[in-house]
Amino acid sequence: MRDVAIIGIGVTKFGELWDKSFRQLIAEAGAKAIFDSGISGKEIDALFIGSMSAGRFVGQEHVGALVADCAGFSHMHIPATRVESACASGGVALRQGYLAVASGMNDIVVVGGVEKMTDVVESEAINILAMGLDQEWEAFFGVTFPGIYAMIATKHMHDYGTTREQLAQVAVKNHANGALNPNAQFRKAISLESVTKAPMVAYPLGMLDCSPLSDGAAAVVLCAAEKAKKYTQKPVKITGSGQASDMLPLHGRKDICTFEATVHAAKKAYNQAKVEPKDIDVAEVHDCFTIAEILAIEDLGFVKKGEGGKAIDKKITTLGGQIPVNTSGGLKAKGHPIGATGVAQIAEIVMQLRGDAAERQVKDAKIGLAHNVGASGASCAVHIMEAM
Amino acid sequence: MRDVAIIGIGVTKFGELWDKSFRQLIAEAGAKAIFDSGISGKEIDALFIGSMSAGRFVGQEHVGALVADCAGFSHMHIPATRVESACASGGVALRQGYLAVASGMNDIVVVGGVEKMTDVVESEAINILAMGLDQEWEAFFGVTFPGIYAMIATKHMHDYGTTREQLAQVAVKNHANGALNPNAQFRKAISLESVTKAPMVAYPLGMLDCSPLSDGAAAVVLCAAEKAKKYTQKPVKITGSGQASDMLPLHGRKDICTFEATVHAAKKAYNQAKVEPKDIDVAEVHDCFTIAEILAIEDLGFVKKGEGGKAIDKKITTLGGQIPVNTSGGLKAKGHPIGATGVAQIAEIVMQLRGDAAERQVKDAKIGLAHNVGASGASCAVHIMEAM
Repeated sequence: MRDVAIIGIGVTKFGELWDKSFRQLIAEAGAKAIFDSGISGKEIDALFIGSMSAGRFVGQEHVGALVADCAGFSHMHIPATRVESACASGGVALRQGYLAVASGMNDIVVVGGVEKMTDVVESEAINILAMGLDQEWEAFFGVTFPGIYAMIATKHMHDYGTTREQLAQVAVKNHANGALNPNAQFRKAISLESVTKAPMVAYPLGMLDCSPLSDGAAAVVLCAAEKAKKYTQKPVKITGSGQASDMLPLHGRKDICTFEATVHAAKKAYNQAKVEPKDIDVAEVHDCFTIAEILAIEDLGFVKKGEGGKAIDKKITTLGGQIPVNTSGGLKAKGHPIGATGVAQIAEIVMQLRGDAAERQVKDAKIGLAHNVGASGASCAVHIMEAM
Repeated sequence: MRDVAIIGIGVTKFGELWDKSFRQLIAEAGAKAIFDSGISGKEIDALFIGSMSAGRFVGQEHVGALVADCAGFSHMHIPATRVESACASGGVALRQGYLAVASGMNDIVVVGGVEKMTDVVESEAINILAMGLDQEWEAFFGVTFPGIYAMIATKHMHDYGTTREQLAQVAVKNHANGALNPNAQFRKAISLESVTKAPMVAYPLGMLDCSPLSDGAAAVVLCAAEKAKKYTQKPVKITGSGQASDMLPLHGRKDICTFEATVHAAKKAYNQAKVEPKDIDVAEVHDCFTIAEILAIEDLGFVKKGEGGKAIDKKITTLGGQIPVNTSGGLKAKGHPIGATGVAQIAEIVMQLRGDAAERQVKDAKIGLAHNVGASGASCAVHIMEAM
């Protein structure tokens, strides 16, 4: 397989975007990415789109064809493939695009991710998200995402002494980062107290421990690495791509405080990229809830299992720390339009490796990692990138 | 890219399967395919699953992880990716699996397709299927699939003189074939009169011109061609894989009687396989409605545009004819559990090329083609296969 580079990125504003439709969002992100890359639309060989539940959120399946059409490519008749892996839909779509170029089948591919979540009432959105859990063994009985992650959080507190304040500090950090990101849904720094005193959702997770419902889209342009410099002076190479699965419901896993899908996807990505966790300069990880970021930095090997909470206290993952995590604001503050999330993570890492991240730039960032989790951890995509 | 072979196939009975769940169906098809291939489950590197709308039909997204889990592979943590392209979900999933092996990333991949459509009331199923159309420009205004294909049929009758009886003969042929297929939903030959006198759905399409709502699943095992003989004496090589898209709603297409996505996908597949339409010995085409089969045989180049109806009269496509089409019974008689359809088409062609199709065997079939269309033609996957 040949090397693959990212030559263009585009992200919409994330938020409650009442004035923009599903198709407007993905068309906007795609147009930005294509413009950023310097390619002509005619050069695109294929599209891959990540979306969790367009069928439920906006009553639209056949998402690949829809996007090819609304982006203006229907006359080119290129393959357009929609990929779904719950909240990891974007990361898994990226991997399919990566494979299409790495295999030699395609030279230039656009990967997009999109979700329009605020056209349904909130209770319905919660039900739709719960379809990423096991419907027959979990969701049917009334458990929702916050409940699942609350169980994980209390177990982590029990097993490792992780504290309520450590969880809250994840939100404080990510909101501080989000305040620096023009596309973030929440651009407001928050205090520790505001998190710990926010209305309870599912103990120990309060309202500010949870990522929001969001509308938004993101896109990246992939190209055979050997041709990347033809388009851009700052291509970013995908050096590792890992994807893995795990038991869908929590009840059968050996340890609910470890996401084996993350462990396995990361291992594959590290091996392919020939790097170790300590080599990563900047990472976007899947913080759908504050506890999820603590699990992520453990399962990715940035810290030992059980030490995620302490790492937050030590500010290892803050901007300026040893390994800044979620400089974009993460799902927590940037927002979490499901299908867009995994692709937007890639876009953030590309900005960092290009040195284009302005106020939230990580100094001398050379190697970055993006970590995208499906639902409660039954799927995961990890990508490692390096500036070329 | 390296050559890819199909070494195992598995198809469930199609029909209204009240006693089998979504997960039971795909697990059954997968187990049959794995058993047929002679591989051990431990050798599987990745799963790809085609499903149109598990979110709407059974309230379950995260379909890849679900299938990895219910098939017993969650402990292996292999990548499991769900692909959606409306009614072409199965064919597009096959293409992703093909790419995974052709690229060298994976050696052995299982591709499955599944839909469980009869757990919702019929009117809801009709609404779900209409989500493969353009929601904002078509479905929202009340048009459903039969209405769309009825417009195409009347235009075809107007432009080319295609008759009501020619449409009906497609159903008669496919029911005759389905009667020979133990897995078909309808195993009953029907008369021309029964089709033309059946209750009208949308002129000129009556009830027996429409494929049914179905439950079912299908799976195939793919392997690097150079290793195929290690597992089976009768591997079938995928010699061409084409995928294409078109404008989603009908109104913007130059000619609603031509599916450009079929034309382009077929062209790519023929070029890659280095064959022409006249070289195809047996084909499974996407006959969601009788008119769709007439379009398909024209757009695939088996006959000239406009001569599809006459070709049916001449019995070119019947078993024993020049190019037998839909020996399985097609979507019309075999059934059309959406995600399963594209994969089941592949399984039928593999049976034919192995010489295992019993009563419906096409004599000396060497080259076969499978043609899977998304909704009203905005996406298409075409695969060409040869016995090794």
